[in-house]
Amino acid sequence: MIRLIDQTLLPATEQHIDVTTVDVLVESIERLVIRGAPALGAAGALGVALTMIQGADEGWDAARLESEIDRIRDARPTAVNLAWGVNQVRASVPSGIATVLELARKVVADDEAANRQLSQHGADWILAHVEKDKVRVVTHCNTGALATSAWGTAYGIIHELHQRGRLGLVYADETRPLLQGARLTSWELLNDGIEHVVQADSAAASTILRGLVDVAILGADRIAANGDTANKVGSVGLALACQRAGIPFVVAAPSSTIDLAIARGEDIVIEERDEDEVLCFAGVRTVPEGVRGFNPAFDVTPHDLISIVVTERGVAETATDTRPDVIATIAG
Amino acid sequence: MIRLIDQTLLPATEQHIDVTTVDVLVESIERLVIRGAPALGAAGALGVALTMIQGADEGWDAARLESEIDRIRDARPTAVNLAWGVNQVRASVPSGIATVLELARKVVADDEAANRQLSQHGADWILAHVEKDKVRVVTHCNTGALATSAWGTAYGIIHELHQRGRLGLVYADETRPLLQGARLTSWELLNDGIEHVVQADSAAASTILRGLVDVAILGADRIAANGDTANKVGSVGLALACQRAGIPFVVAAPSSTIDLAIARGEDIVIEERDEDEVLCFAGVRTVPEGVRGFNPAFDVTPHDLISIVVTERGVAETATDTRPDVIATIAG
Repeated sequence: MIRLIDQTLLPATEQHIDVTTVDVLVESIERLVIRGAPALGAAGALGVALTMIQGADEGWDAARLESEIDRIRDARPTAVNLAWGVNQVRASVPSGIATVLELARKVVADDEAANRQLSQHGADWILAHVEKDKVRVVTHCNTGALATSAWGTAYGIIHELHQRGRLGLVYADETRPLLQGARLTSWELLNDGIEHVVQADSAAASTILRGLVDVAILGADRIAANGDTANKVGSVGLALACQRAGIPFVVAAPSSTIDLAIARGEDIVIEERDEDEVLCFAGVRTVPEGVRGFNPAFDVTPHDLISIVVTERGVAETATDTRPDVIATIAG
Repeated sequence: MIRLIDQTLLPATEQHIDVTTVDVLVESIERLVIRGAPALGAAGALGVALTMIQGADEGWDAARLESEIDRIRDARPTAVNLAWGVNQVRASVPSGIATVLELARKVVADDEAANRQLSQHGADWILAHVEKDKVRVVTHCNTGALATSAWGTAYGIIHELHQRGRLGLVYADETRPLLQGARLTSWELLNDGIEHVVQADSAAASTILRGLVDVAILGADRIAANGDTANKVGSVGLALACQRAGIPFVVAAPSSTIDLAIARGEDIVIEERDEDEVLCFAGVRTVPEGVRGFNPAFDVTPHDLISIVVTERGVAETATDTRPDVIATIAG
């Protein structure tokens, strides 16, 4: 059984879902009950164990077992971590459930350790490059404990700056259409006692250009070998504004988010989600009947707009370091 | 009496409000029952006439009359057209209501004529600079008949391209927090039979960078003497993406939107609206209790990111034409 907090109901309701079947796990991933690239990595690894348990109960043969594991791996296309998590444990299926479960738990533990490590690296770099006593931050989407196994990636850096007494006001983009910033990041910031404001995504560029923040810190769903990064739609808009304003744009992710098999951002598959996510709000349609929506869930930020990519293995200065393997130096 | 369609209820409900007092007019402007820079110009001019009628009924002295007119002029700070509309007729108050009403009606008629003229100029320029049979457009907020006296500004250009058979798919940003794009632009595009999709504001940058559109066409709330333009928050994000993608960013407005008394964008007052617009949706709070919002209603796009400003008097190529008076050539 995998116990998930239903992120679609936060912050109004804290409700857990106990997942015991592949069907429910896949639906939970598709519906964003669980979301966030590193959390999907954990779900992928634990999902293989869950598949084995269900398969033993229901007498699945090897082919069925493999196809059910594939369903988990392919439930969402953009975040590489989901397939990565599955692949971390899949080869051990013949060794039995105990081995797989142990490996899956290691994936979860390693993710938390990676997040804490990258948060140190990220905070160190930012404090070395931003000459402010209190660093004001803008972030987009949700990258905290809800999006990861624990601690958070971009959020982890923000939290680390806070613990060092060096954090100023945080601007959290609400992150339409599903409001992960307004609902989830704000909930985590509140719980951690971090002073912040929520703004419309469209305000981010002017907040940056007006000099109200010192750095943008974001997560990643897939990082190509050249440093181009797919992340929640809207990320590249912040990167363009940071370039214009001359402030750093920081991408934070565990090394499992780096996909060296993908050469460039153009090769990353961008998930297009149900248009109703844009056309409706809380079940109420806001757009006239008969009108269509366009709902790409992610965008790609070219590496020249990214000051650094930081993983648990260190920092790659992708905008200025032109070594072709600069990303490989911080990959897993 | 001024009859307004209540834009806050569209597209679900078409309801009119008959305004007979300054109190109701000011509240209607503040609450965005009526909105859009050129429409505010009309409301300002007609509002002076309404003030005179109410003043005659209630026996106001000259000082009271002036202070009530000031209330209308100052109901919202960013769009210059509101004060401009008031000032167009204010000097004629001593000549009596008939004169003021005639002048106010001329403001309304002139606005429609200006919109139709600038739409011709804008469409001509775009078709001369975009080598496409069908021009695909992204727009932000609402600039159609609802936002103007009639016909529209940026929307008018889109409509003009449509009438010339040269319009491709239109991407309409939903325009958080108040969804003028999703609710109003989409309603007008649907009524005019123009094919379009609604997208989250945060998708605009990647839609532009992915080559899905050929031009961005937006309105303006105030244009400074150097071409810097205040418009609905989010506009500058589109401009940054257009610059990166190498496609034109077009600002369309009647010449009454140009404020030669303002030297640069930094000098434009940016209205900050109630944080509940961001924190709530349809009366339901989406952000945890205790969290604050940041809600600037406008942003400033620097002139070097604007390919052209187009008014009824012609086109100024603000990004490339470095004459200090280039904006003055298309001012009123």
